[in-house]
Amino acid sequence: MNVGILGGGQLGRMLALAGLPFGMHFTFLEPADAACAADVGHQIKRAYDDPDGLTELCELSDVVTYEFENVPVHVAQSIQARRSIFPPPEALRVAQDRFIEKSTFKELDIDVTPFAAVSSLPELTAAVGTIGLPAILKTRRMGYDGKGQFMIRTAADIDNAWSTLGPNDFILEAFVPFKREISCLGVRSRTGEMAFYPVAENQHRAGILRISTPRANDPLQAQAETFTQRMLERLDYVGTLGFEFFDLGDGRLLGNEIAPRVHNSGHWSIEGSRCSQFENHMRAVAGLKLGDTSLRGPCAMVNFISTAPSAAELSGMPGVHPHLYGKSPRPRRKIGHATVTANDSAMLQQRVDRLVALLPKQD
Amino acid sequence: MNVGILGGGQLGRMLALAGLPFGMHFTFLEPADAACAADVGHQIKRAYDDPDGLTELCELSDVVTYEFENVPVHVAQSIQARRSIFPPPEALRVAQDRFIEKSTFKELDIDVTPFAAVSSLPELTAAVGTIGLPAILKTRRMGYDGKGQFMIRTAADIDNAWSTLGPNDFILEAFVPFKREISCLGVRSRTGEMAFYPVAENQHRAGILRISTPRANDPLQAQAETFTQRMLERLDYVGTLGFEFFDLGDGRLLGNEIAPRVHNSGHWSIEGSRCSQFENHMRAVAGLKLGDTSLRGPCAMVNFISTAPSAAELSGMPGVHPHLYGKSPRPRRKIGHATVTANDSAMLQQRVDRLVALLPKQD
Repeated sequence: MNVGILGGGQLGRMLALAGLPFGMHFTFLEPADAACAADVGHQIKRAYDDPDGLTELCELSDVVTYEFENVPVHVAQSIQARRSIFPPPEALRVAQDRFIEKSTFKELDIDVTPFAAVSSLPELTAAVGTIGLPAILKTRRMGYDGKGQFMIRTAADIDNAWSTLGPNDFILEAFVPFKREISCLGVRSRTGEMAFYPVAENQHRAGILRISTPRANDPLQAQAETFTQRMLERLDYVGTLGFEFFDLGDGRLLGNEIAPRVHNSGHWSIEGSRCSQFENHMRAVAGLKLGDTSLRGPCAMVNFISTAPSAAELSGMPGVHPHLYGKSPRPRRKIGHATVTANDSAMLQQRVDRLVALLPKQD
Repeated sequence: MNVGILGGGQLGRMLALAGLPFGMHFTFLEPADAACAADVGHQIKRAYDDPDGLTELCELSDVVTYEFENVPVHVAQSIQARRSIFPPPEALRVAQDRFIEKSTFKELDIDVTPFAAVSSLPELTAAVGTIGLPAILKTRRMGYDGKGQFMIRTAADIDNAWSTLGPNDFILEAFVPFKREISCLGVRSRTGEMAFYPVAENQHRAGILRISTPRANDPLQAQAETFTQRMLERLDYVGTLGFEFFDLGDGRLLGNEIAPRVHNSGHWSIEGSRCSQFENHMRAVAGLKLGDTSLRGPCAMVNFISTAPSAAELSGMPGVHPHLYGKSPRPRRKIGHATVTANDSAMLQQRVDRLVALLPKQD
């Protein structure tokens, strides 16, 4: 089967590494020069919305998927007219706009922080009155890793927030102190079969995910699965979906955001699960049955941001499985990760700590 | 690191799949048109001994390895003059000639069936007199999967054997009834660090390996490791080496043959071990430390010969991990395998049986 992927970064690369053992062949539509997915497939070096590039991608592919959530919806739709594309374009439409996304959560009875759409300074002032402070002003579209966000703590911050970020279309969200962020990776096949990975606890620094640790038998697993399942069904989804939640510490989860693709907080599944999120995404997209999402044992994922330990250092660390993407180091850039595995959680913590000690303290 | 590989078949493909997560890039020197390794690296489409091809391979590579044992020794030596090549050419010299191979076993006190070099009909007749019957006449070089062999049961077969196979340089080996064939995969790093996989029990049909099952705590593990270690050290070996033995059933192992490369009887290590034979070969060749060769749990490898179940069928079988090489089906051709995993050996046997039931009974 020939698979086309919009995007040629590390997620595309890892999708191909998971799909190649099924005899799949990969083509990436990716304008970047040093695309790290080009090691594992054919690259069409054109813009994501280039008509000739899209035609070539469709001609070379039996089915198309994507590895980033900012694929223009009209591009996905133009592919859909020619080839199957999964996840469906509707998933992009919902995920690309924080207001539509949170409104969809509400519709599906997925708990969510109070929020309002805001497109002008007077609307912002009014929304602060309704929602209260502290609150976070976020662009409705295109923000990631903490970009395009402003925390409003007091009324005096309102003008500053507006002048820093605006004018734009925003969502104002009540800030809710939470105990931890967890994410649930769900996967749905073309026939509607579903499977869920154990929820993972995510640790961020400077707005970037650093460590993700799946928790077997987490008390909030059932709630996270229920919410993720509603989303998968609402979107008639096919593939792996990442769903981030805030755990308020009182038994409640708030839906934060979805990613209609494989997700950084599920990278531990390559060695940690019997079937990884990448393999399951490819199984779903290719119309196959889903694989076993259960854990093989305690594991965690440590991201390499800006820089990474050398392969030589990593090879000397028991239970450390490197995934270096072949990208050149650059500040705040994700250039690799490692899955850390161990026989028990104490050994796991020790191994994670030893690995983290090799990473820069600030980045 | 840029790695050059002589050969572009499934072993090269799986070596690359194991090396890519370390950020390695791959170039294959392979004359075949539809080389299945070309999905995961750059292919130089020239003969293995083509001077321009070899020069290009060296220019594109920091280190060179190979995926088949019939690389001409002079080719490996010509690479060695320009780039590091592992395993060392000496391993090729020994493995390519059954007489040198068995003589080396003898030198190293590795038990071996009685054998003699034979280059003429009178020499064959004399050797039969010394060694006795039944005995197997084999070409010294280039035989594989049962080709170039003749079983001499009675003196009346001698002329027939000679006229069928000869003239050529042969080895005559006393036929020894054995209980089972096992293989030991050993790996040695550039610094001399060594690691061994659990021995695997191999089942053949029509001269081709069909099923390979690693045995945790096999009573002959220590003996197999000792013999494999002697070979690794004698050859100043770097990489993964496959060593096939006959288990005579009385506590003795006879050395049958070595393969100076990753080996079909170790393919279960992709999912079955913490670090696969492919990853460990790449770690060794790249000068890294070795990974953990221990089993994750019960597992086996089932080869797909001539034909393979579809990805759809395979995806519906619990514990079955497909590895389809992207090769077109052809009689007696290895086109894929599956690792079968399970929680216990009864479940493993059931899953293997279910998979084998999908395969042709004759091929």
